[in-house]
Amino acid sequence: MFKKDLAALTPPMGWNSWDSYGASVNEKQLLENAKVMRDQLLPFGYEYVVCDIQWSEPTADSTEYHPFARLTMDTYGRLLPAYNRFPSGFQEIAETIHNMGLKFGIHIMRGIPRQAVYSDFPIKGTRYTAREIVLPFRECRWNTDMYALNPAHPGAQAYYDSIFELYSEWGVDYIKADDILRTDYDPNNSYAARADIEMIRSAIDKTGREMVLSLSPGPAKTDSAWHLSKHANMWRITDDLWDEWPLVHNMFDRMEAWQAYVKPGCWPDADMLPLGTLRMWKGGIPSNLSKDEQITLMSLWCIFRAPLMMGGELTRLDAFTKSILTNREILSLTKSEHAARQVERTDAYAVWTNLDTEGNPVAALFNTSDRLIRISVPFADITESPVLSLTDLWTGDDIPFAENAISFEIRPHASRVVRLKG
Amino acid sequence: MFKKDLAALTPPMGWNSWDSYGASVNEKQLLENAKVMRDQLLPFGYEYVVCDIQWSEPTADSTEYHPFARLTMDTYGRLLPAYNRFPSGFQEIAETIHNMGLKFGIHIMRGIPRQAVYSDFPIKGTRYTAREIVLPFRECRWNTDMYALNPAHPGAQAYYDSIFELYSEWGVDYIKADDILRTDYDPNNSYAARADIEMIRSAIDKTGREMVLSLSPGPAKTDSAWHLSKHANMWRITDDLWDEWPLVHNMFDRMEAWQAYVKPGCWPDADMLPLGTLRMWKGGIPSNLSKDEQITLMSLWCIFRAPLMMGGELTRLDAFTKSILTNREILSLTKSEHAARQVERTDAYAVWTNLDTEGNPVAALFNTSDRLIRISVPFADITESPVLSLTDLWTGDDIPFAENAISFEIRPHASRVVRLKG
Amino acid sequence: MFKKDLAALTPPMGWNSWDSYGASVNEKQLLENAKVMRDQLLPFGYEYVVCDIQWSEPTADSTEYHPFARLTMDTYGRLLPAYNRFPSGFQEIAETIHNMGLKFGIHIMRGIPRQAVYSDFPIKGTRYTAREIVLPFRECRWNTDMYALNPAHPGAQAYYDSIFELYSEWGVDYIKADDILRTDYDPNNSYAARADIEMIRSAIDKTGREMVLSLSPGPAKTDSAWHLSKHANMWRITDDLWDEWPLVHNMFDRMEAWQAYVKPGCWPDADMLPLGTLRMWKGGIPSNLSKDEQITLMSLWCIFRAPLMMGGELTRLDAFTKSILTNREILSLTKSEHAARQVERTDAYAVWTNLDTEGNPVAALFNTSDRLIRISVPFADITESPVLSLTDLWTGDDIPFAENAISFEIRPHASRVVRLKG
Amino acid sequence: MFKKDLAALTPPMGWNSWDSYGASVNEKQLLENAKVMRDQLLPFGYEYVVCDIQWSEPTADSTEYHPFARLTMDTYGRLLPAYNRFPSGFQEIAETIHNMGLKFGIHIMRGIPRQAVYSDFPIKGTRYTAREIVLPFRECRWNTDMYALNPAHPGAQAYYDSIFELYSEWGVDYIKADDILRTDYDPNNSYAARADIEMIRSAIDKTGREMVLSLSPGPAKTDSAWHLSKHANMWRITDDLWDEWPLVHNMFDRMEAWQAYVKPGCWPDADMLPLGTLRMWKGGIPSNLSKDEQITLMSLWCIFRAPLMMGGELTRLDAFTKSILTNREILSLTKSEHAARQVERTDAYAVWTNLDTEGNPVAALFNTSDRLIRISVPFADITESPVLSLTDLWTGDDIPFAENAISFEIRPHASRVVRLKG
Repeated sequence: MFKKDLAALTPPMGWNSWDSYGASVNEKQLLENAKVMRDQLLPFGYEYVVCDIQWSEPTADSTEYHPFARLTMDTYGRLLPAYNRFPSGFQEIAETIHNMGLKFGIHIMRGIPRQAVYSDFPIKGTRYTAREIVLPFRECRWNTDMYALNPAHPGAQAYYDSIFELYSEWGVDYIKADDILRTDYDPNNSYAARADIEMIRSAIDKTGREMVLSLSPGPAKTDSAWHLSKHANMWRITDDLWDEWPLVHNMFDRMEAWQAYVKPGCWPDADMLPLGTLRMWKGGIPSNLSKDEQITLMSLWCIFRAPLMMGGELTRLDAFTKSILTNREILSLTKSEHAARQVERTDAYAVWTNLDTEGNPVAALFNTSDRLIRISVPFADITESPVLSLTDLWTGDDIPFAENAISFEIRPHASRVVRLKG
Repeated sequence: MFKKDLAALTPPMGWNSWDSYGASVNEKQLLENAKVMRDQLLPFGYEYVVCDIQWSEPTADSTEYHPFARLTMDTYGRLLPAYNRFPSGFQEIAETIHNMGLKFGIHIMRGIPRQAVYSDFPIKGTRYTAREIVLPFRECRWNTDMYALNPAHPGAQAYYDSIFELYSEWGVDYIKADDILRTDYDPNNSYAARADIEMIRSAIDKTGREMVLSLSPGPAKTDSAWHLSKHANMWRITDDLWDEWPLVHNMFDRMEAWQAYVKPGCWPDADMLPLGTLRMWKGGIPSNLSKDEQITLMSLWCIFRAPLMMGGELTRLDAFTKSILTNREILSLTKSEHAARQVERTDAYAVWTNLDTEGNPVAALFNTSDRLIRISVPFADITESPVLSLTDLWTGDDIPFAENAISFEIRPHASRVVRLKG
Repeated sequence: MFKKDLAALTPPMGWNSWDSYGASVNEKQLLENAKVMRDQLLPFGYEYVVCDIQWSEPTADSTEYHPFARLTMDTYGRLLPAYNRFPSGFQEIAETIHNMGLKFGIHIMRGIPRQAVYSDFPIKGTRYTAREIVLPFRECRWNTDMYALNPAHPGAQAYYDSIFELYSEWGVDYIKADDILRTDYDPNNSYAARADIEMIRSAIDKTGREMVLSLSPGPAKTDSAWHLSKHANMWRITDDLWDEWPLVHNMFDRMEAWQAYVKPGCWPDADMLPLGTLRMWKGGIPSNLSKDEQITLMSLWCIFRAPLMMGGELTRLDAFTKSILTNREILSLTKSEHAARQVERTDAYAVWTNLDTEGNPVAALFNTSDRLIRISVPFADITESPVLSLTDLWTGDDIPFAENAISFEIRPHASRVVRLKG
Repeated sequence: MFKKDLAALTPPMGWNSWDSYGASVNEKQLLENAKVMRDQLLPFGYEYVVCDIQWSEPTADSTEYHPFARLTMDTYGRLLPAYNRFPSGFQEIAETIHNMGLKFGIHIMRGIPRQAVYSDFPIKGTRYTAREIVLPFRECRWNTDMYALNPAHPGAQAYYDSIFELYSEWGVDYIKADDILRTDYDPNNSYAARADIEMIRSAIDKTGREMVLSLSPGPAKTDSAWHLSKHANMWRITDDLWDEWPLVHNMFDRMEAWQAYVKPGCWPDADMLPLGTLRMWKGGIPSNLSKDEQITLMSLWCIFRAPLMMGGELTRLDAFTKSILTNREILSLTKSEHAARQVERTDAYAVWTNLDTEGNPVAALFNTSDRLIRISVPFADITESPVLSLTDLWTGDDIPFAENAISFEIRPHASRVVRLKG
């Protein structure tokens, strides 16, 4: 067990502001969501409250970034929360959240603010200035906030150290580092920010504080799995996931590819759960996924043991959404001591299995096709032991069976999760 | 444990004719190598004698293929060994090899012979003919023997069934299926022969005979690992490996990427061992790898638990080569019950670890750079238990140590393998 | 003036069987179309009757090719017309067509028939056989008839010489050579059959017979223009053109790029005219282009001076189609002594100009947008001389004008062609 | 004739500071080169003195750019010459150069200075500011000075208008616009700054001043030829040309592709002449091209009618270099009224022809191979008239000939230029 793994022994669970607020969340919204989490979701394991991108941009008002906007920062080029949006500052906000029994996370971008470079601010604790420690032409290609650091220059590590020193003082428990896992500036290498990942790992370790390190955006490449497992706790295995079936469907491919890399401290990340009420900048839009699709999503995430970061606005949490977020049997799959295994995959369906926390085999059957089909899985594909009973994990109901197989007619995009007992 | 995994519970070991004879090996050469294997290598676990590509081509005389050459086949379009090169036929050759206590393997190509298509031969056991079951424009791009089969046509499976029926009759124990793992005909999909892999798996299963299924050429993509693990026993994780250091060096990348997929029945394959005397069509050329590089290669293959298929001509086996092929302590690493783990990797060196068959941690330190360097690994990176002794696994010597670390000066391209005991 | 240019001093005009019959035209259909051409189109300059692809395939029945079909050929591997489809043979058919005052063209493919390779036929006039003169892996990627020749082998030129000797004996006047202008086998070089073009040029020159050499498929690259101009008379500047507006629209791009290369003997080719009744294998389908679009097509082809090869079935020629194929004023533009020049091009429209055969400037205005717009062109953009009258070239009507400009409201996809006189 | 073409009726000739001074030329160096040009080269037609990149960067000291350097600019974000390098300013420098009978050119980059954006300067004559008129992610990928303008915003044209107003006041005669012809920000479109070219054309036209517009860097694509011909006077058909034979050799490909586009006002540009003494920042290095290669370069540039912009330091002009820059017969080829034509091209040699100013055919024979070869060209490939005499254009010597062909043994990389008379 690596020390960094201690920060995330099971898949992290919580809420992230992006799906509801894009780049524009503010203190009030953050804390209101935290309160709902404390009251309704904390008993089920949800604990992280994560403030996503551009908290230092005073004029942010949607998911669109304002090119070359002026960011709030200190004279060491370290971004600060915009005063108008987060009047209490992150230190006080973190304390408030901690006092609820929750944990606090923030989003950061690879690099150093462009404005810090044009202002040529000093790097804290060094004799370097911002202009000296950047490398041109390696900056983010979808947001104009930052320039890239030069890993060969000692000031680069020093800059990362200086910001994590601050985050540690604030009491941050979770870092979503962005523009770092899949980068676009080198068309021949999408994992070109490898050195930035190492510098951030090192900066976290120096603080002595336990922080979950989550990397974005995806998809990550499986060839990078060793390096990712060594330095991070979560890494996105997909581009942004939204509430559209083709994106959920695509996750069967991604999880097939990443199943061998799920273990304590290392959680391939299928992105936030686009459930409940989303896109508050448009007034709040209900998730476009059908109920069957939402249950499929939760079943897949849980048996795979993906992080569970809710994306929908918690103050609008409806009964159905709450029920699928808080099914104790399904959630307990994420606490398994084993990585799940895909048993079968065709154009029409997928079958996964894992052992539950008591060592009983569980099977999940997914109809990924657009028509009603029967999916049958011989017991022998799941377990070598005799099977005496089957239980539906979502409902707790016993399932009668005739032959030595699990067999269901399943609606399009729907799924079944079954526990096998001897 | 899948049934297909039973054919290869540990990494397969043996000899393959390619590095010594290219496309032109004959019966006499094959059996002479078998005899040396029986006498000198079988006691150490080497058992497969594999006849590589183009055994049905009567005029083959080197590693160069003759475009559009006439191949020997039966009237069902099933390739037969060329009479002039293998006068006894493969059934009798297999029997001879079996009588030595060894196993027999052959190379095949995806598809059906082009000549069978032009002659429009019938497919055994069906009412179809060869022309009906092929798909144009998907054939191999580096050898002209075969056309591609149409997986949507039932005659395609029937053709594969017919050839494996023959191989089973012959007594074949090992199939090296080529032009199937990395294909070139679709520039957007190098794993486009997925359906052929499934058909071959199915054809083997129908025979009831245990055969190792080895797929070529590489490099395989890690995103295909689940499918490969389900259907094959070995798959090449590299393009052809020859006796040049850059190719060996590259294997550190490949093994880093594939370390999570090593398990009984599933052996990511780093290609044949280009050791001893190679390229007999040029009179026999000694391996171009230095002794240090050869030991590094064997150390890496063994701790990773890669298949060990000797490439050099066994009748010319020299003492040094024999010594590195038959070091019992090093070879025993391949019998570990665990997958190895890369501990560290830099531009200059790599460190791997695994547990030996008795559960003791073993560490392998590789200097991948071109200069003498010191490599140090804290014991804590290898094991959580206290360490009381260190043994050099190649020599059996005790290694004195001062601090809580393994630390060696290591020559360029050289390596050390060490057992830690508590 | 190069000798090869004498074969096509103005843009070739005629009929090609592809748009109506795909790969399956037969003698009767060919001659019936020839008769209509003689009676109705020859007076306007249409003279070539071209038999398109796969005339040697006895079972061809649509535009779909039959993979690995048996082709009719002589014992030198030279394709012959399938007896069942062309019972008179091409020599007699050519004579019949010549007797009508028309000219005869055929389609060929780069290379030598695959069957000639498998049968290893001798190459006429040499001591070589087919298998010796081919290069593997360079064959066509969309039709299975041929293998590629090895330009470094003297037998390759000899094979081309042997087929053109035959075509000359038959009385062929026009060769549409296919799979030669844009090839697909080398992803880094779509002009990889350059040597085949040179061999065919040389083979034609040796016959002493004047033959138009037309190269397909497109799009050609403008960087190859010098080589094309030196060796061919026509070369496709587009992929297949069918009766869909986006394909016609795209031709404005292609003609913009190729306008500098139009001259006697050298005719960038915008493909056949998909007008009238097309796709006889589906019973005959009227062109899907609107009347405005058809007039736009003819206006553009004629002012650009593209070859005019009718694609529609001539026995079903309707009055409208005939009228736009035979407007003498519009057709006379193709006889200009100058290359046309694009005057203006925006997202919404294009303007072209050329001098007519008497030296008067002509302007063509094309509305390429999907809405009614006004297009205005100052006289000064067309001519430096004063303009006293404007004539509509399609109708012969005088056009009143107020200011020093041509200005029309033009419907979507429609056009106007105007002669300016001083 | 377009108005823009009047600025360059024959290929522009002059001197550019890049090959000698990179980004660091100063007033003194510029004027010293101007004086040599006036005294020694002006009589042969050389007239432009062009100050290349980064004249507004006070700390520039070589060909390396300083990332994010502070540039000298006015409060409208218009770059000004750095005071320390050009103390007199460009208006006074232009006047000095004009007084020598010469013309003055400057280099500019696509876009607006990044600092102008961070300072959010107003755009002259508008109510917009710099931050409003830029588009992110489209900036130059090899120099950090500028951001890209948003062509859809009216302020973009206004900004270009404002800088050309300044250049007109200064008396600039020649603009080398860079990062505009081949752009790197869109991997699918290297001609993505098309709108910037149009805006600059429009800005020049508004000044009413005649300025040569030269576009960089190359290679341009021939598919853009129409657009380039309409808006610019010169465009680079190659990446930077330096004093290495492979780069000169490559120009035969480029000129083959561009020969159809040479006409008054439109000069495909093969880059500066890397002759004489280059790279003054390294103390001044003599051209690495052999004498034969230099003569080949001048022969090719002149018969093709490429712009002749000397790159070497003129104050160090040696006798040989001066002699090849000032051969009147060779230079007169650039004044031909016709575009040159490539006659033949093989792996070993190239032959070009054009008519001289009196209508006599001239042929240039180039040995592009690495060995001595004989090149023979039938008179008939050059002219249809009888040939009575041959003159060597470089020496003026008569050349005896036996058969109806030009035929020379030519050294590797050498060439011959010959006038044919009847």
